[in-house]
Amino acid sequence: MESLLTLGKKAKQVERQLAQASSKEKNDALLSMSRGLLEDSDSIIEANKKDIKNAEKNGISDSLMDRLTLTTERIESMSQGLADIAKLPDPIGIVDSMWTNESGLKIGKQSVPLGVIGIIYEARPNVTSDAAGLCFKSGNVVILRGGKAAFHSNLAIVDSLRKSLSKGRLPETAIQLVEDTSRESANEMMKLNRYLDVLIPRGGATLIKAVVENATVPVIETGTGNCHVYIDQSAQLEMAKDIIVNAKTDRPSVCNAAETLLIHKDVAEEYLPVLEKALNEWNVELRADEAAGEHLTTFTPATEEDWETEYLDYILAVKVVDSLDAAMSHINQYSTGHSEAIVTNDYFTGQRFHREVDSAAVYVNASTRFTDGFEFGFGAEIGISTQKLHARGPMGLPELTSSKYIVFGEGQTV
Amino acid sequence: MESLLTLGKKAKQVERQLAQASSKEKNDALLSMSRGLLEDSDSIIEANKKDIKNAEKNGISDSLMDRLTLTTERIESMSQGLADIAKLPDPIGIVDSMWTNESGLKIGKQSVPLGVIGIIYEARPNVTSDAAGLCFKSGNVVILRGGKAAFHSNLAIVDSLRKSLSKGRLPETAIQLVEDTSRESANEMMKLNRYLDVLIPRGGATLIKAVVENATVPVIETGTGNCHVYIDQSAQLEMAKDIIVNAKTDRPSVCNAAETLLIHKDVAEEYLPVLEKALNEWNVELRADEAAGEHLTTFTPATEEDWETEYLDYILAVKVVDSLDAAMSHINQYSTGHSEAIVTNDYFTGQRFHREVDSAAVYVNASTRFTDGFEFGFGAEIGISTQKLHARGPMGLPELTSSKYIVFGEGQTV
Repeated sequence: MESLLTLGKKAKQVERQLAQASSKEKNDALLSMSRGLLEDSDSIIEANKKDIKNAEKNGISDSLMDRLTLTTERIESMSQGLADIAKLPDPIGIVDSMWTNESGLKIGKQSVPLGVIGIIYEARPNVTSDAAGLCFKSGNVVILRGGKAAFHSNLAIVDSLRKSLSKGRLPETAIQLVEDTSRESANEMMKLNRYLDVLIPRGGATLIKAVVENATVPVIETGTGNCHVYIDQSAQLEMAKDIIVNAKTDRPSVCNAAETLLIHKDVAEEYLPVLEKALNEWNVELRADEAAGEHLTTFTPATEEDWETEYLDYILAVKVVDSLDAAMSHINQYSTGHSEAIVTNDYFTGQRFHREVDSAAVYVNASTRFTDGFEFGFGAEIGISTQKLHARGPMGLPELTSSKYIVFGEGQTV
Repeated sequence: MESLLTLGKKAKQVERQLAQASSKEKNDALLSMSRGLLEDSDSIIEANKKDIKNAEKNGISDSLMDRLTLTTERIESMSQGLADIAKLPDPIGIVDSMWTNESGLKIGKQSVPLGVIGIIYEARPNVTSDAAGLCFKSGNVVILRGGKAAFHSNLAIVDSLRKSLSKGRLPETAIQLVEDTSRESANEMMKLNRYLDVLIPRGGATLIKAVVENATVPVIETGTGNCHVYIDQSAQLEMAKDIIVNAKTDRPSVCNAAETLLIHKDVAEEYLPVLEKALNEWNVELRADEAAGEHLTTFTPATEEDWETEYLDYILAVKVVDSLDAAMSHINQYSTGHSEAIVTNDYFTGQRFHREVDSAAVYVNASTRFTDGFEFGFGAEIGISTQKLHARGPMGLPELTSSKYIVFGEGQTV
């Protein structure tokens, strides 16, 4: 088992080679890794069975078991993911602006890889190939640290990816797995400033919090989503219903699902019973404040904790507000800054919501579920940033790049 | 004396008001602060005298004393700086791209302030108004923590700025000073994740290192510059001489000054004596490797430490290299990733240097001294980032912004 320091050194050794790889070299390698996963499907599933057996012994939850389990279809989808990444435009080497300064220097701002990216994640083995593919395409060396539960699966996936890489001209060590899944290795990784340029945690709120609080390596905080839908008094009932039902029930376990419904007092009496009926069809449990409870049949009284909670489940907090200002003030107090939506027919209300709500994605008359690299049209997603530095919102390939200034002179001095 | 927590809370309270301030409101306030500094010039100089008296007692160095001292001219220049910032385009509210996704949503990426910015700096009181002005213009609340040596000066400057602010409509607490200059308060500030969106250290290598190693708040690392000039065998002697003399001697105390000269072995014998003579006129001390020493009259033998050192002084390390590859490999090993220059007549050599050197600014045939927000044409500079996340190289107003996606829907659901 190699130490993190060794992995870090090896990563730095190949950093420049990968940064300068041509698009063709990278795409050929991605397609080779894509084919390799299919060829190694049986051995990956075999490794996954070990993880599942351990998980059964440890009695993990059904949803965790679902995330952990690999099938032929899931491996096909991982393989397809790599092939799709190969088709995306290369984000490296783009000079998006170039100008001439007062001294006649031509100054161009060119995209370059970040360098070495660390990914800390949990039980989903598909993150392994997905993150590896995106980092690779953007010319970054990646050091992956998956959760203990998926250890054998991750090892088999990385072995397969590296076997494919070894057939081409780019270095195998562009993709490395941390085999030590102890808490100590995670903590060590968070302080590996010498070898890591950035650390991206992908997983639940506890993991993200631990990384943000302990890391000295620059972190991109992702994916905690306490998202809100506010139904304004001018909202159309049908549209409001469609949006809240979609935002809550389309996939409750993901970060862009709605967790709190805010509704203007003037329409609470008319709309809430209709919304309750629609949400009942999905067995959504309601946690309501007093004013909302007056118009609901079945609910639990909401506590302060409910406004703060990312349920990731068929549960929805409901609150009646007196005004747009009250709604935005609630959102800005409790939101994690991920995605918020308003349903309104009023032009100025929409304008104010766009301007005054401080979240990565602010929607007028659409579901929060659209906050996603694929829905946005990026063709890829490494995560959804909820911090303001470097990247905010869905992160595609360009968000995995930095820049450098290339300057063309003819002898100029200051 | 208010605690950091109190300052943080107050900052967050006005964050949104400042973020939504119009360009006119912000510019009017900047011009008012600019005039105010002139009006308060006497009291600021009075306060500065206290700092100078303390500094004399503590026996600080001449260069530190120079940085600390305020004169009428320096205050005029600080005042002019604020007026200049008022004239720059507002970096907030720019939608630099907008598109329609598959579902017909219009998605725009709009610039917004980062939020609350912490600046940790040392003895230069002019940083106080400079950083305050840039943060203010970009809609960010700023919490300033200057060094103990400049405490009275900083307090007087911030008092003046806030007095001017209080005459307008924008909140005084947009600009706050940490009055506790103890090491503990610096450490507390580095972990103030709840209230600070980003921390920018400005100062010497020791300060920067302490912040990078201890902060859990996202940091933008600035200004450590171990910069290199490489003279290729095809370089024109005159141009090589002008560039190395300028890069070394124009202002040795700043981060974009050259610290190491690399020269190709084929021209070492002819060029080094000429370069030594030119550098002698500026009393530059040379620290040379053996091969370089053979062609120099007066020098100290270089040690490993010399390749690593940012002298910030009239000292230059000199090394003969066998090839472009050897030069780039030295640079990539020892550089802090700030600025590097090559002098060459060869097209392909220049291309390779641009591509393979991994620093914020890579020059072909120009002095490293151009790495500067004003020289680049940004009209402002908060610092020079030597990290890859968020911003790299000279940071102007756009680098003090984040973004949010504003989405215009018509009832879309996923």
